[in-house]
Amino acid sequence: MPKMLHFAWFGAPGAHYWNLPSSRLYDWKRGELYMDIARLAERAFLDMVLFADIPAIPATYGNSNDHYVKHGLEVHLDPAPILAMMGGATRHIGLGATLSTSLYPPFLLARMMGTLDHLTGGRSAWNVVTSASPTAAQNYGQDDLPEHDTRYDIADEYLDLVRKLWNSWAPDAVLEDQERNVFADPAKVRPVHFEGKYFRSRGPLTVPSLPQREPVIIMAGTSPRGQRFAVTNADMVIAHKNSVADMKTYSTKLRAQLAAAGRDPRSVKIFFSIKPVMGDTEAMAKERWALNHDQADAESGLSYISAMIGIDLAKLDQDKPLPPDLKVQGMIGKLLQYTEAKKDMTLREIAKNEGMHETFPICGTPEQVADIIEQTAEEGGADGFHFRTKVGDIAYLTEIATKLMPVLRKRGLARDSYAGPTLRENLFAF
Amino acid sequence: MPKMLHFAWFGAPGAHYWNLPSSRLYDWKRGELYMDIARLAERAFLDMVLFADIPAIPATYGNSNDHYVKHGLEVHLDPAPILAMMGGATRHIGLGATLSTSLYPPFLLARMMGTLDHLTGGRSAWNVVTSASPTAAQNYGQDDLPEHDTRYDIADEYLDLVRKLWNSWAPDAVLEDQERNVFADPAKVRPVHFEGKYFRSRGPLTVPSLPQREPVIIMAGTSPRGQRFAVTNADMVIAHKNSVADMKTYSTKLRAQLAAAGRDPRSVKIFFSIKPVMGDTEAMAKERWALNHDQADAESGLSYISAMIGIDLAKLDQDKPLPPDLKVQGMIGKLLQYTEAKKDMTLREIAKNEGMHETFPICGTPEQVADIIEQTAEEGGADGFHFRTKVGDIAYLTEIATKLMPVLRKRGLARDSYAGPTLRENLFAF
Repeated sequence: MPKMLHFAWFGAPGAHYWNLPSSRLYDWKRGELYMDIARLAERAFLDMVLFADIPAIPATYGNSNDHYVKHGLEVHLDPAPILAMMGGATRHIGLGATLSTSLYPPFLLARMMGTLDHLTGGRSAWNVVTSASPTAAQNYGQDDLPEHDTRYDIADEYLDLVRKLWNSWAPDAVLEDQERNVFADPAKVRPVHFEGKYFRSRGPLTVPSLPQREPVIIMAGTSPRGQRFAVTNADMVIAHKNSVADMKTYSTKLRAQLAAAGRDPRSVKIFFSIKPVMGDTEAMAKERWALNHDQADAESGLSYISAMIGIDLAKLDQDKPLPPDLKVQGMIGKLLQYTEAKKDMTLREIAKNEGMHETFPICGTPEQVADIIEQTAEEGGADGFHFRTKVGDIAYLTEIATKLMPVLRKRGLARDSYAGPTLRENLFAF
Repeated sequence: MPKMLHFAWFGAPGAHYWNLPSSRLYDWKRGELYMDIARLAERAFLDMVLFADIPAIPATYGNSNDHYVKHGLEVHLDPAPILAMMGGATRHIGLGATLSTSLYPPFLLARMMGTLDHLTGGRSAWNVVTSASPTAAQNYGQDDLPEHDTRYDIADEYLDLVRKLWNSWAPDAVLEDQERNVFADPAKVRPVHFEGKYFRSRGPLTVPSLPQREPVIIMAGTSPRGQRFAVTNADMVIAHKNSVADMKTYSTKLRAQLAAAGRDPRSVKIFFSIKPVMGDTEAMAKERWALNHDQADAESGLSYISAMIGIDLAKLDQDKPLPPDLKVQGMIGKLLQYTEAKKDMTLREIAKNEGMHETFPICGTPEQVADIIEQTAEEGGADGFHFRTKVGDIAYLTEIATKLMPVLRKRGLARDSYAGPTLRENLFAF
């Protein structure tokens, strides 16, 4: 029996799909698109839709917002209200938001995610980020963000606080006893009186114990400090790796770290990003790949990388590899991904791949793509994959849902039903 | 021709409807209830659903959370995700959230409300409050709130900032020009570089110009400083008055203040709160009123008033009126409502009325209630009324929707269609 895999639909809700073919059917700013995406993803039995987010239009590339605004890049709606809307249109699929511990007040986040979990009967997930965008920090009135490792120290305390808030109502506190006219037992609902180094909060939360106790906690950090954070806190990690060998190194190390920390190495689900390019024949798939590559805009890839690593790449020679000694201002893990795994590629090629959203290249017929997914999971140590794409690309989601997922299901690699009402149950069903 | 009136459905989304009859059909924590409420309110052509909120379980009454927890009072879900879900289930009705300028980071609020406005095609409203709850402040890591008038100074600056963010994209910035591959004109999307006394923000917002330009701005403050704030900022006010005379005083003064400030006195819609008690005959209505009064829980009324005015009323003699010299810690306007308009009532009677959610008593057949509404609007200077009740009381909403609203429509007092896709269009259609 092959191992069953999990699948997520991943990307940011934003203007970058303004010129997709589906923009002739849907306004990217309107709820209809997102509700249809959620319905379709649920029909294909994906585990979840997960929104990336950076709450700022970057000003890195060319030292201004202009390039990003002109092309609708990194122009993102707030993911939280969209998830709630998607939750109203579905019954099973998980709903994940990327929210920053450097920007969201902890009580607000605990309450908002708690409400989302209740409204959807236990389908919420939180992708914890510490933010690497100075522009985002400035939007929120800060001069700049604390330095990388300090951000994770702050995030550790933040997690500790929001977990105390989620647990400020005991799971059996609510009685709803009509005869005695008692809603809840006050002895089981206590203030948290949290006094940390970075945060304070009184509590209790205004929301009873969550259907999932806590939202599913996701981490994407691949820096050493980020991975330590994941070992302590995560239920699931998402990683972008360029080869099976890199995936294997990552998953082996993470599972070893989990064991060393006294956690079951299987208690964290490892997802790697993919964006299969498919065709009904191999020739058609290859033709599609070539076309994607031709059409890929190196500049939008460049500006994206600039924003992620906090370095203005407009100034560098695109026909050379990235200098290995760049001092990163942003995401360390992201920079390593380019300077290590792609150290022999020119900046232009790296940028083109980013423009295509290609991390780990997969191309072929649905059957061939399923082969690669199966083999990659086995050799790379994956529990699942997230399709890293434009979330609102309903044409591509339809292709995945109608062509790839049925093949995976037939082979016993993907679920053909949901295990329970909550995301946690589905994520840990296998 | 009588004047057409506006109607809103108002209250907090919370545990206080755990023991309503409808709790046998709906879990108050689940999205289904709220989506059905929104659909029903839209079917009755109400202008909007408006959520009250205080993000804290109070600890005023008896100096602890216990009474509130035990009875599920002031235990509120986060209104923002609920509104998004309701927006997904409807097409016309307005969606209003109460959000505090003392607790929400301005960039987060501007982006979240901007997203809600886009997702719903322009149906968002923001009830601006400065918070009067020290417990809420402590949940958010503050020792206490600034004093009353300073809170409004801060709120003035807050409004200024979020408006600049909403206007950081010119309405004609987005081009979506596929031929030239231009999403938006960067010259029309500018950082705000806001540097105030209380807030800073870089901008621009990550969300293009809103369908409504700005959410409909609502104010509930009735203190002198609160009313000055409304004169400067509001599109709509909601006020709780105990008599037609009080309504008239309030509306006359507000319209004079608007004129004095150079604003059209009709540019702010004035809503007063009502909670009609109805029966198919006058006798049935009176019987219902008597039953409500018998069943009204004075203690829950007391604990509510305690939380609002920040004074522990558990210590006071319930058979006497409120002492006129109470020093308020919370909402000044609320206290005045009790110590002035109700100065001859005992605390027990005041509390019983609060327990019934009665501000301005209306009782009768639907025809009689319609008479009172028409006369009250005319004499009191109202543009509309908000039904102040338990938002999740779907049985009561059904009664209003099926019995009262049709009578009002027949008399030309209530709309029988929506004027346009946005809340602003509907609110200012008459």
